[in-house]
Amino acid sequence: MKDRNSNPESAGTESDLIARILTGMDGLNSRILLGAGDDAAVFRNRQTAISTDLTIEDVHFNRNWISLHEVGFRAVMSAISDLAAMAADPFGVLISLALPKKGYNVILEGLRGGIHEAVRKVGASLIGGDLSSSPGPIVIDVTVLGETRDLVTRTGISSGDEVWVTGVLGGSAGAVKIWLDGGDPSTELRNAFTRPPFRVPEARWLVENAGVRTMIDISDGLLRDAGHMADASDVCIVIEPKKIPLHPDLDPDIALRFGMSGGEDYELCLVSKKGILNPLVEIFEEKFGLGLTRVGYVEEGSGIEIKGKECNPESPSNRILGFDHFLV
Amino acid sequence: MKDRNSNPESAGTESDLIARILTGMDGLNSRILLGAGDDAAVFRNRQTAISTDLTIEDVHFNRNWISLHEVGFRAVMSAISDLAAMAADPFGVLISLALPKKGYNVILEGLRGGIHEAVRKVGASLIGGDLSSSPGPIVIDVTVLGETRDLVTRTGISSGDEVWVTGVLGGSAGAVKIWLDGGDPSTELRNAFTRPPFRVPEARWLVENAGVRTMIDISDGLLRDAGHMADASDVCIVIEPKKIPLHPDLDPDIALRFGMSGGEDYELCLVSKKGILNPLVEIFEEKFGLGLTRVGYVEEGSGIEIKGKECNPESPSNRILGFDHFLV
Repeated sequence: MKDRNSNPESAGTESDLIARILTGMDGLNSRILLGAGDDAAVFRNRQTAISTDLTIEDVHFNRNWISLHEVGFRAVMSAISDLAAMAADPFGVLISLALPKKGYNVILEGLRGGIHEAVRKVGASLIGGDLSSSPGPIVIDVTVLGETRDLVTRTGISSGDEVWVTGVLGGSAGAVKIWLDGGDPSTELRNAFTRPPFRVPEARWLVENAGVRTMIDISDGLLRDAGHMADASDVCIVIEPKKIPLHPDLDPDIALRFGMSGGEDYELCLVSKKGILNPLVEIFEEKFGLGLTRVGYVEEGSGIEIKGKECNPESPSNRILGFDHFLV
Repeated sequence: MKDRNSNPESAGTESDLIARILTGMDGLNSRILLGAGDDAAVFRNRQTAISTDLTIEDVHFNRNWISLHEVGFRAVMSAISDLAAMAADPFGVLISLALPKKGYNVILEGLRGGIHEAVRKVGASLIGGDLSSSPGPIVIDVTVLGETRDLVTRTGISSGDEVWVTGVLGGSAGAVKIWLDGGDPSTELRNAFTRPPFRVPEARWLVENAGVRTMIDISDGLLRDAGHMADASDVCIVIEPKKIPLHPDLDPDIALRFGMSGGEDYELCLVSKKGILNPLVEIFEEKFGLGLTRVGYVEEGSGIEIKGKECNPESPSNRILGFDHFLV
């Protein structure tokens, strides 16, 4: 954490401003020995998962669509989603903010509320960060720390395994499509974009009760993310489109495409040994109030297949199936 | 680590590009159980210091002054400097890059070399990161992880203690001044800006051999950084200007001002009990080929004093003594 940049709009120093983001939360997570305010934070934890995730204005969000509070909340939750994919329990968050000079203080205050809401929701502490004015758009980089016991990766898949997803898919891309068309998405679709779910409890449950060891969070769309798992394990994953749980508010004409390729739903895609999850689905769905759906299976081979038709999401002809970012 | 953004210039996917930054380095640090390439990295370490540091184009550097290799190197080393201030031994680095579309691949390749050089130099592994195109300037956020045994903070200072610094000060600001005036700094001044020093070995030595428990890295200038320690410990630090070790290539007219207030030298400022360091100076200087200089002492009171004249670096009249960032 540095203090190299003068603050363009207020009499407070950069230290004061960083403090405004980093303070005002309740006591520290028990793993934190030294929180924000020194040169570094210090934590004590045996085995730690760490990931970092960028959120950039006019790439990942548009200020005309969602509030600054929602931007801050979403930035943290989408980073936490990587910990869910590792079944890791979040305990620490660091936030770096590059903010335009125009509206600097208003932006900082808006983001702050959403960041705090998310950090609180996941049971972590805000233990560090950096802050600078910038000649560019809002850039938020969120680093998350989680405690992990079992290594839950993208690998370890075998032929015959089953592929499952939590929740419903396509909603986040559906909201973006409506905004781009000048409309207003339904509350449910809007929430799919602005309120990424916290899936760590579900992930832990699946690891502990169903022995799941392969998982990814759906940030790039089901096909691409399942493709990452297939590549990492050197197998072929067959996706059955009719089984994909689609967000109920999606326009039927685009629902399947968005369910397969829409990004940023932040649901879990996981691989389980054959027959293990079936008897547990009802218990899972009752416990979490969330769907758990088998969407495919694993064969020998490589890449992704859709209903028997070979389909590698990385090949140019299928790139359109990947999540095309709205402003790129 | 996400893959949400398409790559504007090449046929490679964002995964390929992230891989280009994150791979190509030798084996992993022994604390790393799972390196880059999954949803998160996993490391095993008992007590960890973590810090994050932003570097923004046209705020912290200018592409007309230094190469992209130097930008990448400097971004990592300035983040590592926070670990030195904690006497923590670096083992992991995560890099988030928001890059302009214009020249995307060239920028990525240039930064990569400097990032790798720095990560290798400090004995760490590159274990994660994120990458996105951006409508704004180059933004680099570096998160660093270090092993720490003793808590070395900004606090714990008492009246009568001595204040010391390593190396020489003012060189980095001196180089910036010359660039801003349209000139070319000497190699030594240029290096003061482009090659932040790695001071972890010196910091560990001071902790182990002189019982130092209070340290900060000089990123905002001696007066401001000493001020942070004074504030954290609720004492007054008196700085003796004549004792400040100034960079020998500085213009004599500005040398003292830059030595007191120039930022980003990334030397250590530390507090020691009275009389402890004097007999060790020669050993330290011989071992590290680096000066160790007493520049002040601690009194009861608050803030910073210069030669008996009260001077709070946070007060408006003294703000000019703080490091005025070149483009803000």
